[in-house]
Amino acid sequence: MTIRVTVWGENVHEQKNKTVAGIYPDGMHNTIAAALNRDSGIAAGSVTLQDPEHGLTAEKLAQTDVLIWWGHCAHGEVQDAVVERVAEAVWSGMGMIFLHSAHFSKPFKRLMGTPCNLTWREAGERERLWLTSRNHPIAAGLPDHFELEHEEMYGEPFGVPEPLETVFVSWFAGGEVFRSGLTYKRGAGNVFYFRPGHETYPTYHDANVQRVILNAVKWAHNPAARLAEPTVAPNVPVEQALEPIEERGPKLHAAGEEGYR
Amino acid sequence: MTIRVTVWGENVHEQKNKTVAGIYPDGMHNTIAAALNRDSGIAAGSVTLQDPEHGLTAEKLAQTDVLIWWGHCAHGEVQDAVVERVAEAVWSGMGMIFLHSAHFSKPFKRLMGTPCNLTWREAGERERLWLTSRNHPIAAGLPDHFELEHEEMYGEPFGVPEPLETVFVSWFAGGEVFRSGLTYKRGAGNVFYFRPGHETYPTYHDANVQRVILNAVKWAHNPAARLAEPTVAPNVPVEQALEPIEERGPKLHAAGEEGYR
Amino acid sequence: MTIRVTVWGENVHEQKNKTVAGIYPDGMHNTIAAALNRDSGIAAGSVTLQDPEHGLTAEKLAQTDVLIWWGHCAHGEVQDAVVERVAEAVWSGMGMIFLHSAHFSKPFKRLMGTPCNLTWREAGERERLWLTSRNHPIAAGLPDHFELEHEEMYGEPFGVPEPLETVFVSWFAGGEVFRSGLTYKRGAGNVFYFRPGHETYPTYHDANVQRVILNAVKWAHNPAARLAEPTVAPNVPVEQALEPIEERGPKLHAAGEEGYR
Amino acid sequence: MTIRVTVWGENVHEQKNKTVAGIYPDGMHNTIAAALNRDSGIAAGSVTLQDPEHGLTAEKLAQTDVLIWWGHCAHGEVQDAVVERVAEAVWSGMGMIFLHSAHFSKPFKRLMGTPCNLTWREAGERERLWLTSRNHPIAAGLPDHFELEHEEMYGEPFGVPEPLETVFVSWFAGGEVFRSGLTYKRGAGNVFYFRPGHETYPTYHDANVQRVILNAVKWAHNPAARLAEPTVAPNVPVEQALEPIEERGPKLHAAGEEGYR
Repeated sequence: MTIRVTVWGENVHEQKNKTVAGIYPDGMHNTIAAALNRDSGIAAGSVTLQDPEHGLTAEKLAQTDVLIWWGHCAHGEVQDAVVERVAEAVWSGMGMIFLHSAHFSKPFKRLMGTPCNLTWREAGERERLWLTSRNHPIAAGLPDHFELEHEEMYGEPFGVPEPLETVFVSWFAGGEVFRSGLTYKRGAGNVFYFRPGHETYPTYHDANVQRVILNAVKWAHNPAARLAEPTVAPNVPVEQALEPIEERGPKLHAAGEEGYR
Repeated sequence: MTIRVTVWGENVHEQKNKTVAGIYPDGMHNTIAAALNRDSGIAAGSVTLQDPEHGLTAEKLAQTDVLIWWGHCAHGEVQDAVVERVAEAVWSGMGMIFLHSAHFSKPFKRLMGTPCNLTWREAGERERLWLTSRNHPIAAGLPDHFELEHEEMYGEPFGVPEPLETVFVSWFAGGEVFRSGLTYKRGAGNVFYFRPGHETYPTYHDANVQRVILNAVKWAHNPAARLAEPTVAPNVPVEQALEPIEERGPKLHAAGEEGYR
Repeated sequence: MTIRVTVWGENVHEQKNKTVAGIYPDGMHNTIAAALNRDSGIAAGSVTLQDPEHGLTAEKLAQTDVLIWWGHCAHGEVQDAVVERVAEAVWSGMGMIFLHSAHFSKPFKRLMGTPCNLTWREAGERERLWLTSRNHPIAAGLPDHFELEHEEMYGEPFGVPEPLETVFVSWFAGGEVFRSGLTYKRGAGNVFYFRPGHETYPTYHDANVQRVILNAVKWAHNPAARLAEPTVAPNVPVEQALEPIEERGPKLHAAGEEGYR
Repeated sequence: MTIRVTVWGENVHEQKNKTVAGIYPDGMHNTIAAALNRDSGIAAGSVTLQDPEHGLTAEKLAQTDVLIWWGHCAHGEVQDAVVERVAEAVWSGMGMIFLHSAHFSKPFKRLMGTPCNLTWREAGERERLWLTSRNHPIAAGLPDHFELEHEEMYGEPFGVPEPLETVFVSWFAGGEVFRSGLTYKRGAGNVFYFRPGHETYPTYHDANVQRVILNAVKWAHNPAARLAEPTVAPNVPVEQALEPIEERGPKLHAAGEEGYR
């Protein structure tokens, strides 16, 4: 079964900043998608902020098994209606991977329910990622640690909920640590946050980083049929109760009525 | 140290529905607050949807250690700005307890990041709550199970994130089960969801239910000073790094610049 | 890739009790293995308590991707050395599924670190399992609830650690509930506990139960190479430190010495 | 309410090694206990490996609200019967704190069910602990990070189960990271692992370390009455079922019979 991946790219610094354009002449989103497409089980494409509806129409989301999100300077330009549509897709079973500065993207904050804040420093310092969950599928084929010679620092405390599992923790040359790989489930959808990827460094050309993203796509992919109505709260009428019961006491709702939301 | 509790009541059915008014002539919020005030370590008051800013001004939240929320038919009338203010208060360290139909309240959905949906039936059937975490502080003084003779049914799957701990699971006469007591942490704030409390039944007069809410207040209370800026993401300049590092490579940000949000 | 499954059966009541022998003339272990073998991606066999080393030699474990355990009246006859060998295999990456009364088996208690106790009643009452984690791979292809008309009751509180995820919760006709499907990770190994399966009822002939076990095998299977030494605690000499450091202060250990255990 | 703390010390290197004896002339256990006794709400004493039954008689454990454990070179000398007694006390509600090299102590491995292994280096390097859970009670009064100038390094992957919460993560000068503060619940007992404390450095004289241990004692303390029988698995006879049911189908057990263990 082919996993259909959509990489969402903000695509602003690639257009405006010569350094970023030099590292990612095709855009970060296309670099990430191209690396994924080297795996025969994956069909990855990309969309950007500038596309109509940011490229994330209902049709596109319905055809996306795993959505990858990278954004930074234009979080505020993402329309709230698209954010809700993305959240509903996750709840219905779409996998989602948030990269680096997407910690402050609207969909990540929407799904976490927390500030998602951290400390940071842009100094091209060394980052070393350590595996904290042995043989986790997201770490398949990776050593117990690997390095990125130049990265932006993100430091704890990271304002996210306690994850299902902490998969990676980063060491930074300047003295900080960060929980770099975190798994969540939201509704029927698997969610993974992965820290590296500042746009002025060639992080998404790194083989280990590409491997983590590939592994995360496979981990996040849920082959089950998408839930048709992930937010519905159905009434179960008394006469359809699984055990015979009699209605007792006072009621607010007439039979068959919708609940309050 | 006295724990300052604010009980937020929707206060609609108490005014419009004779059954509810008969059970809770002072309003559900005041019944809940009065039960808490029997504990000498607690000072509980109440506010309602109809108050200016729904009673939840910045000042009120600053003076609230634990906020309790009950709402049902008027979730949609709660202003979004107040919801954000409440969420920020939780992130800064305020404890929060959501009761029954508050599973669909705006603040709960905001903090969970999920649909928070379930199945339901209003038939006055028997509910039996079972303890699933022995000696949990929220279950202090309670037996391993207790019953509510008349309750609304809520059934699984409950659309919430996996909790830190599942404290109670409910059995219903009609054949369903429900995770009735769930703990979370959001930012610096402790959050508890507790299922019972349909307004047409005398649930908040029940001694065991009152005990759970009292215990939950004590559990959720965080005596640490509230975080002043729970959403801030401070830059750490290179020259203030805890370990000596030199700036390397290209940069996006000028020294001292704010990050993107 | 074929998943190699070994089903461990206690194989006592099948030999001594006419009811059990009538339901499982080939033994419970062989019934479970046969159901799994209908999936083309699985090669399942069985071993029993009565085999030399209970059938669980180092070679057998090395060739087992997922081990399934059913035991009841003879927990105490399992040799401690075999229990340790099984635990080490899990830590090195073998998946493991514990069924029903295996909650009191030595390997389960060894891996949980808790009493694993519960309440119980053998009355052939109705059990209904509810899904609590939507689209969880262990629930693939299953409805939101399914029933077993005759089962032994297990009731909360269940003396296990809080799981990674609660996948199923059971309702019992006599008024109890039970967390029936729980996931854990121990070392590099995935562990699943699944409640149903009292030997006097035809539970392992049930299509839904067979489906859960099949799904759980696929979920627990870790395709990564088994860790060679899952319990090793290697010293990292100063001269091999990833960042240049100088040895400082007093020492207990000579260079290259083993640590204490 | 006074919290009764017992500090268990291995007390070997204090007797044999001049460096350790110089830093801890009263023994590490007594240094830790003395720091705790500065809090008026705590009454801390100590026992050692050399005491009869290692100082951990049933009476002593019954009078201990929180047990702190430090051991290193003599893990193997701790009697298995005492380990089981300690584990049962935890399951019944006693709090327990494991310090530093106690990661390889018998009681910790017993309660975790995992290898509890790690990498290590004794080079007196700098350790910096970062808070990862804001306003966690175990971090009360502490800054977001603090340093120990000389410590032994412990590195990931740390072979423990995913905790309820990760409270601290350590940075080491040599390039490693480690999850340094981890919470668990086992039965009715709260368990905390805290990393620092190599015996050749003055770690337990450090004010921040003392504060963490003090906070952890308060967090781990469960004021509820200890469970009398934490491992019991009671039968619930049909005639005592909470809902009326009739016995159906074949049975293994006679009425009132004990279950198998």
